[in-house]
Formats: sequence, C-alpha cells, structure tokens
Amino acid sequence: FNPVFADLPVTVFETMSRLARETGAINLGQGFPDGPGPADVRAKAAEAVVDGWNQYPPMMGLTELRAAAAAHYARWQGLDLDPDAEVMVTSGATEALAGALFALVEPGDEVVLLQPMYDAYLPLALRAGATPRFVKLSPPDWRLDEAALKAAIGPRTKAVLLNNPLNPAGAVYGRETLEAVARAVEGTDVVVISDEVWEHVTFDGAAHVSALGVEGLKDRTVKIGSAGKIFAMTGWKVGLVCAPPPLMGALSKAHQYLTFTTPPNLQAAVAYGLGKEDAWFHAMRAGLQAKRDRFAEGLASAGFKALPTQGTYFLNIDLAPLGVTDDVAFCARLAREGGVVAIPLSAFYAEDKVTTVARFCFAKDDAVLDAALERLGRFL
Amino acid sequence: FNPVFADLPVTVFETMSRLARETGAINLGQGFPDGPGPADVRAKAAEAVVDGWNQYPPMMGLTELRAAAAAHYARWQGLDLDPDAEVMVTSGATEALAGALFALVEPGDEVVLLQPMYDAYLPLALRAGATPRFVKLSPPDWRLDEAALKAAIGPRTKAVLLNNPLNPAGAVYGRETLEAVARAVEGTDVVVISDEVWEHVTFDGAAHVSALGVEGLKDRTVKIGSAGKIFAMTGWKVGLVCAPPPLMGALSKAHQYLTFTTPPNLQAAVAYGLGKEDAWFHAMRAGLQAKRDRFAEGLASAGFKALPTQGTYFLNIDLAPLGVTDDVAFCARLAREGGVVAIPLSAFYAEDKVTTVARFCFAKDDAVLDAALERLGRFL
Ligand SMILES: CSCCC(=O)C(=O)O
Ligand SMILES: CSCCC(=O)C(=O)O
Repeated sequence: FNPVFADLPVTVFETMSRLARETGAINLGQGFPDGPGPADVRAKAAEAVVDGWNQYPPMMGLTELRAAAAAHYARWQGLDLDPDAEVMVTSGATEALAGALFALVEPGDEVVLLQPMYDAYLPLALRAGATPRFVKLSPPDWRLDEAALKAAIGPRTKAVLLNNPLNPAGAVYGRETLEAVARAVEGTDVVVISDEVWEHVTFDGAAHVSALGVEGLKDRTVKIGSAGKIFAMTGWKVGLVCAPPPLMGALSKAHQYLTFTTPPNLQAAVAYGLGKEDAWFHAMRAGLQAKRDRFAEGLASAGFKALPTQGTYFLNIDLAPLGVTDDVAFCARLAREGGVVAIPLSAFYAEDKVTTVARFCFAKDDAVLDAALERLGRFL
Repeated sequence: FNPVFADLPVTVFETMSRLARETGAINLGQGFPDGPGPADVRAKAAEAVVDGWNQYPPMMGLTELRAAAAAHYARWQGLDLDPDAEVMVTSGATEALAGALFALVEPGDEVVLLQPMYDAYLPLALRAGATPRFVKLSPPDWRLDEAALKAAIGPRTKAVLLNNPLNPAGAVYGRETLEAVARAVEGTDVVVISDEVWEHVTFDGAAHVSALGVEGLKDRTVKIGSAGKIFAMTGWKVGLVCAPPPLMGALSKAHQYLTFTTPPNLQAAVAYGLGKEDAWFHAMRAGLQAKRDRFAEGLASAGFKALPTQGTYFLNIDLAPLGVTDDVAFCARLAREGGVVAIPLSAFYAEDKVTTVARFCFAKDDAVLDAALERLGRFL
C-alpha cells in the first residue's frame, strides 16, 4: 500500500464522533449543526429528484448553478466571474482541495501550509508529491506573519494553502492580511489555494474577503466554497470552485477523474439557495452568533477561558490556565468522564503543536449547548 | 501544473455530449439512459432530503446502506461480506477507482491495464505514480489471453485493473476467465481492482460473476459497484466498494481525503433500492435486452455490421466492412452530417489502437433508437 494514506489514522472528526456515539457524550467535536437545513432548499432538492434530471449533469456543473454561484459571489464578495470559464462544481470542498493539489503539484514541489490546518491538507499535499513547508499561527490572535510566510516561499514553491475564515481558530482575515500574502508571492508563480468554506459564517459584522478579489492574488487563486457549509447541511457535498481560466483548465481535468460529476438534484437546489434574499444569510449569521455568545458566556461562568472567535462553527478554550498540557488526554477524559466531546487542537498541527487548546462546535440547539455547559461546569 | 492532468483533453464522453447539444444530433455517445429512474427509489430520496438527516453520514457510509449492499451481493452474487468491515460507500465509482489507485500505488509500481479501457484508468494510474503495462483484448470476442496477462505481470506489479462486464466491448467474462486471472496472479501480492459497475446489466441470462467470489481472487480484490448504473440514474454518484479488511483499511483513508462522505439522502434511497424484489432487476435487464435487440436488428437492416454484446448499455459496429480506418473521423462526420453521436473505440486505447469500431449507447427510448436508426440508414 502507498504509505501516505495507509499509515494514517482515521480522521479525528470521525474518531471523536464515534466516541460520542459509543459513550453517549454530547458531540461538540465534528463540525456540523443540529438543524435540518433550510426547508425550501430541501424542498427544491426533493422536487429535482422526483421531477428533474437524474442522469449525468455537465462535468463542470449545472449551468444554472454556475450562473447562480457567479451571481452570488458578485453580490456578496464583489467578484466578477465568468460562470462558463471560471466556476466549477465538485463533490464537496474536500474533492476540490484534493483536485487542486493533484492538478498543480509535481513531485519535488513545495506547498506552504499554515498551522493550525484542516486535517486533510497535509496527507493530500504529500500524496500529490509535495514537500510541505509550515508556517505557524498562534493563539490568541492567530496573526499571519508576513516575514514568516515570505521565508517559507522558495524557488520550488508551487502553492500556498490558505483557510479563511480559519478552522479551528475562528479567525477571520481581512484585506490587509491578504495583501500581505499578495506581497509574499509577488514575482513568483505560486498559486494560492484558498479554502473559504466558512465564507458565510462570520460574526460581528465582519465581511468575508475572498482572496480571488484581491489585487495580486486574483490571477493565481483557486477559491474553494461549500454549499454544505453555506446552507448548514454538511452531508450535501456540493463544492464550488472559482479560478481564472488557465488554472481552471487543469483543475477540471482532476475533477473529471476524481468524481466526474456531482448529483444534479442537489446542484439544482443549491442554485436556488444561492439566490435567496440577503436577509436569510444575515439571519443565519445572527443565529449562529447568538449561539457563540451563549456558549462563550456559559463557559466563562463555568470558569473556562474562551478564546475569541469571529467565524466558523467553532470556539476554543485555553486549557493552560487549568494546568493542562496534553489536549488529547484532556479531550479523552472530557468525553469519558465529562460527557462532552471536543477536538484537541493538536490534531490540526503536524509539528511544533499547540497542545493546550480544545475546540468546541457551538452550532447546536440551545438545549444541547446548555446541557454541555452544565456538564462542563461539573467536570471542572 | 502537473502534466498528467493538465495535458489531458476533456473526456471523450463530455466532448461528444457537447457536440450533440451543439449540433442537435441524437446522443448515443455518453452512456446514460433516457428514463427518469425508478419512481420509488426517487421518492425515497425525496423523503430523506425532506425528513431525514442532511448532515455528514459516517465516513464509510450509512450503516443501512452497507448492510443492504452486503445482503444484495449475497443474494445476487453469492458473496459473504461483513457490512462493517468490507463495504464502503464512495461518491461514485470514479472516486472508488481513484481512491484504490491512490491508496495502493507507490511511484515505480506497475499497474496492468486491459485495453480497451475506460478513459479514467490510465490518467489515474499515472497520477498515482504507476507505470502502465497493457494487455490487449480484440474484437470480435475480446477474449483475455492468460499467457499475455501473465507476461504483463512482473515483480513491480501492484495491481491489475479488470472491467467486467466490459465497457465499451459489451463482453461479459465468466468464472473461467476469472480463474485464469487467479492463476496469473498466484504467488504474487498483486491486487485486483475489479470495476463491476455494469454487474446488473447483463443479457441472455448471463449471471455476473464477481472477482470477489472467485477462489484465488477473494483475498486480493477491490470490487467497485455503482448505484447510478444499477438504478439507471447515472447522476447519483453513489459508489459501492467491497474488499477484504486489510485492503479496506487503506482504501478508506483515500476516501476520507478524496470526498470524505457521500450525500446521506441518496444513500438512504439506494439502501432501499438494493432491497427491491428480484423481479425488478430481471425486468430492467429484459427491457434493456429488448432495446439491444431492436437496435442490433435495425443496424443490420440498415446494412451495418453489429458486434455481439452481452452486457452494458453499449453496442459496437464494425466499420471495417465500410472501408473506414479512422473511427474518430467517422464519428465526427456521423455527428455533423448524419445527426447521430457515437464514441470512437480508439478513445479506449492508449496504444496499438483499434480504429475501426464505433460504440453506440442503446439505453434510450425506442423512439430515439428508431430515429437514430433512420438517420444511420440515410447516412450509409
Ligand atoms: C469532514 S468532518 C470535519 C468537519 C469540519 O469541518 C470540522 O469539524 O472541522
Ligand atoms: C462518466 S461519462 C461516461 C459514462 C460511461 O460509462 C460511458 O459512456 O462509457
């Protein structure tokens, strides 16, 4: 077997969700919301499955979805995309990420990864043949150091992988940080793979800035979005890739042989959903922001130190004040004795790990959050 | 860009479907049926989308689908599978194939490919790092020569990729051929990747024999199935992978990072569908067999030489009697001047191409077949 994949453990998200099922612990680990998702979007999918086209859609995605995505990103992020040449639909953001790495990387290339990083990044980069170069982001503000990024980029660098908003940190990077990235890659051929799956999940009025809209990055960015995250239905696995045509040419070949197409019924429903009025998106954010606040306040009352979060479904607690130095052991005990599942932050690092932070998903019913807070208080 | 993918053309199926849309030609190229798919299976999917779980399913697939697949393959193919350890759901058979190659192959390994071959095989094998070794199957009977297969297997061979029933040839290989494969790999560690997506589409009473049920192959076979093909809804992209546990361990890691999961609503509907009574599957086959016969007879009356087909949606015509030596040019003219799209068989070869055969998909409404036959007759 190829050792890159064969030697890997099961993903931490799956492992912790299984632990929750086995122990009956409240699952605040894997990032998915409790709700069923918007009823009208689900109704559209049902309609498409019953009355619509169930055969292969075009390999690049339904025309109506590509048009809807271009219109949506124009409206929300000021992007100017040609739906025919610059938008592609994939079977989830994970496929989009895998495809980007397989399409771009040649053995011997370097890929710059920012830690903490989503757990798929490193294995995919390695399997694509890349040598990873790491740049570390640290709590509490997770600031990207321009000099450190620049130092990690060399003559063999093929790509830099960004995640904004940043899972697990909950940091939202604005235009200034992206301009720093643009300066760091200036004069090189480096591609920026920008995982923006949390683009709609931002709080306190923060507007998401896409790398694809930033001068100096526009011509080199592969933007990855996720309908599952936008509509809080993580099982849908409809990814949205936007990139300038020369990049799209290579990306589409990888897509063609990784999954070829994505169910047309779900695509049709996502096309409808992306056209929903602004108010729906604002209400979705406000609802999640209220949950963030409820959970953060509860944690504070219980005596935990919550770190700030401006986006994503996640809130971190700093374990250092509790004298904890091993987040994995802490999370294992919390699950078995405390009845709450969280994700140890060290799972998001390959080296030089932060081991004193635990991540909680707060996109849950209020009653679930309250029950978890009660258990956390008792556990402490 | 990585040249393996970047230098590829758009897949021939997509290209020919686009040509059909542009020219208004009847599309007998890409393999998909005209029908909407079984109403009860679609109704189940609609129900699951509206009332069911739309968040991440377990990474390996819904428990109910894995159980249904194991029961289905026990009933139809006599396989004895542990649904928890030997069955995995992927986002279509293409992902399953990509995952198998990425999980197994290390750079420098060889993979044996049988030509004609589905167009994804070679690029995926190359991108996984393999050196291909080809074995040729030739019309009219497409027999697998045991000595040729044995000669292609050497000390660096990691896998042999089989496709049975064989697209585009329409050949169905029985137990004897699979036993020949078993003899050819005996004493080696070679894995057999068995693409069995057409397993239910067999005619004249031929029963599909899975490589996973054959002595000498059981312990080394990755069987790949496709709900889209079983239920004639090619857009659904629900793949079924069966393999012994040591192989499954590696395959699941590839799946975890290629797409992670597959929409749970479609999975639930497929679980229901796999339990449908035998009569449904027999009727599906009989319906397609009648179409095959209608189309073959029509071709013969029109003066074409149809090659025999025992399975798949495809029927080939031999162009040699027409003096044609360039199948690509023939198919281009047939589309533009004759108003019918077919696939040139040479698209399924990397070297030593058969260039005198064209493939037609007959899984279409009778009226469409009749119109195509009428045009083909005029074209001739
Ligand atoms: C693919 S499972 C992980 C989901 C997620 O985004 C997270 O929990 O970080
Ligand atoms: C993935 S498009 C091709 C569908 C098919 O199986 C074929 O036409 O051979």
